[in-house]
Amino acid sequence: MSDDYRQMWKELGLDLDAHDALLGVLGQAYQDIYLAQKQRPEGMGYFDFVMSEVHGLRIKELVDEKAAGRKIVGSYCVFVPEEIVLAANATLVGLCSGADFATEDVERMLPRNTCALIKSSFGFKLGKVCPYLESADMIVGENTCDGKKKAYESLAGLVDNLYVMDLPQVKSENGKALLKAEFLRFKAAVEKLTGVTITAERLKDGIQTVNAKRAALHRLSALRKTDPAPVSGLDGLLVNQVFFYDNPARFTASVNKICDELEKRIAAEEGVFAKKTPRILVSGCPQAVPNWKLPMIVETAGAVIVGEESCVGERGTRNLTDDSGQTVEEMLDAIVDRYFQVDCAIFTPNPDRLDHIQQMVAETKADGVIHYGLQFCQPYLMESIPVEKALEDRQIPCLRLETDYSMEDVGQLKTRVEAFVEQLR
Amino acid sequence: MSDDYRQMWKELGLDLDAHDALLGVLGQAYQDIYLAQKQRPEGMGYFDFVMSEVHGLRIKELVDEKAAGRKIVGSYCVFVPEEIVLAANATLVGLCSGADFATEDVERMLPRNTCALIKSSFGFKLGKVCPYLESADMIVGENTCDGKKKAYESLAGLVDNLYVMDLPQVKSENGKALLKAEFLRFKAAVEKLTGVTITAERLKDGIQTVNAKRAALHRLSALRKTDPAPVSGLDGLLVNQVFFYDNPARFTASVNKICDELEKRIAAEEGVFAKKTPRILVSGCPQAVPNWKLPMIVETAGAVIVGEESCVGERGTRNLTDDSGQTVEEMLDAIVDRYFQVDCAIFTPNPDRLDHIQQMVAETKADGVIHYGLQFCQPYLMESIPVEKALEDRQIPCLRLETDYSMEDVGQLKTRVEAFVEQLR
Repeated sequence: MSDDYRQMWKELGLDLDAHDALLGVLGQAYQDIYLAQKQRPEGMGYFDFVMSEVHGLRIKELVDEKAAGRKIVGSYCVFVPEEIVLAANATLVGLCSGADFATEDVERMLPRNTCALIKSSFGFKLGKVCPYLESADMIVGENTCDGKKKAYESLAGLVDNLYVMDLPQVKSENGKALLKAEFLRFKAAVEKLTGVTITAERLKDGIQTVNAKRAALHRLSALRKTDPAPVSGLDGLLVNQVFFYDNPARFTASVNKICDELEKRIAAEEGVFAKKTPRILVSGCPQAVPNWKLPMIVETAGAVIVGEESCVGERGTRNLTDDSGQTVEEMLDAIVDRYFQVDCAIFTPNPDRLDHIQQMVAETKADGVIHYGLQFCQPYLMESIPVEKALEDRQIPCLRLETDYSMEDVGQLKTRVEAFVEQLR
Repeated sequence: MSDDYRQMWKELGLDLDAHDALLGVLGQAYQDIYLAQKQRPEGMGYFDFVMSEVHGLRIKELVDEKAAGRKIVGSYCVFVPEEIVLAANATLVGLCSGADFATEDVERMLPRNTCALIKSSFGFKLGKVCPYLESADMIVGENTCDGKKKAYESLAGLVDNLYVMDLPQVKSENGKALLKAEFLRFKAAVEKLTGVTITAERLKDGIQTVNAKRAALHRLSALRKTDPAPVSGLDGLLVNQVFFYDNPARFTASVNKICDELEKRIAAEEGVFAKKTPRILVSGCPQAVPNWKLPMIVETAGAVIVGEESCVGERGTRNLTDDSGQTVEEMLDAIVDRYFQVDCAIFTPNPDRLDHIQQMVAETKADGVIHYGLQFCQPYLMESIPVEKALEDRQIPCLRLETDYSMEDVGQLKTRVEAFVEQLR
């Protein structure tokens, strides 16, 4: 990255030495894991560029937007409605939570038995290495799991612009009413932040922009259903990860460009792996940049990942928002309808998720499912046992993994994944 | 216990051999921990009797009540309003969750990283050793923490009478409205179960009965403030534990009888430990029967526990319900008001709890606080760090412990507690 960025990072308050170290590790990991892949679609070149500039050019764009009076909203969760943020002429970005950082400092603020994702979000703040967080004019927390819900109480002492959104735990009428009330409150907060009143026209634009991003990913998902797989699971995950960071219109165009290329590959029966390579659906916890551990293990073990039933994946992007409403109120109801369908494990009961996993297995022609659980993530670990049982009752092989962001268990995971892949042949 | 009970246990579906083993261990623990204490108030004899008959006479009473047409409601949480249960002519009992049982079977249904309390509740069911659970006509779960919320989804497959109550996560207007809606739904469910319509008169009776239990405990708490302590923390905890099991009127009378005796002790300056014994407030997770590990360690380390800031303790019993309403609606509002004040760590934020801890430290003249956290209990472990910090900022020594129901760490805990007690002298 250009030296010009150092001044920008300094002004954002980053710890330049620590940040250099982080970028060094990130760059090496990207080289070893992503650039080492064979037969990658050319269109992934855009995403390679995005990743090489993830703390550079993209941050410069955000800083430029800020200089032009636009506000930046940071989020840790797919429940934060990007439609509303865009309609208020603001930009939504996902905040860093995919790598361990400043762990010793983090464990002075959070119990050791906290999931890696939450610890990471604190680590990036305490270590001063997340330019997205430091650029954000408003940071949105949300009452999903106990871990995040309670951690935001401590995060509130570290940042001065935290906004916490309450969420229901049950998909009842009361639950939906709560979601609507919270989205209305959020709309008011974003309007206050930006000074922009959300009109029907602006909201329709926002919905259409986000829908276009989602539709591009739906198109990509549909192409991943082919055998041989035209794109790796690593690259599929990366595209889903960049969904949270990139300029929406550019992201949509770039995904569609890859899809054009994949269609040609499919017509030519070309793939990244040989035909009949065991196909795996990954289901469970989100995998944020640069958490590429599981797909790296799976795809070097002779299998291909054909879908992600995850917040960074289809759980986060499954449904479009109905854009046919004429008033702000009608469209807000449509937004509530759309987000209320997200089958996060924080809901009880959560039968839709099991249906979706089976549906994805059928659609992606997956031979088996790997349930990816972050250690200490109670909601997904709790669901993983009945999910495994239900899948096995339907003769769908399932491997439950529980891990964190460290590399210490890679050998052990590799052994288990290889044995599982062998079973699928 | 009498042999007559064996037939009753068999009819309830208990595993007699496993149950014998459990009672053997429980009896021995009670002997070693409780009966070995010196200078106990005579009034504790009643509680010794209750504990010796906890699976005997008390279960016989419940079975007799059932034969007479009364319904039994089982609960795992202080958010289940006993006022409503009593008003429908039913009996509320706490369900077993204070000891490890059938752990191997439990860990096939729940992640290993689940707190001991939740695992225990499954163990008692899977091992068929909880006569309260087997007597219950309705089992009430509640959406408190992620662990319990998601575990009830699996418990629903083990019992055929599970009712789940939703709970708010935020003390907002919406949160209070949800609590009220859920209490109304619960009232309807209990009325359906019993066939009894809750009238204003019945509800006032229910409120007064539960208030009397609470008031007796408030009286006991006030007497524990004296130096020398007139009763041990072990015995104080036991009384709070029996609160969940015993016939309400008999419990109230028995606690008041002890209080009469303690008043005489106090007048005579008699105590269970010498004057100036270091005084400790225990704060944190509930300690259910027979989880007496922490007070046993503390009180054999030369300190006395003078209060429990816990669901099994003052958090569960702090406020009375206003009984001045004339209509069912008015009294239901009073019940909602009362329960909405419970400062459980599932709420975010939860500043009242910190205030209450400090208030209890002042009132009980505690020299320090031990924060009791069950391993993997995210809400209380998350709160323990800011609680410790806030207390230490106010020069109140605090020791954070994290443990489970096993005895493996007793030596290590003893060492830490002894060092802490030394610091308080």
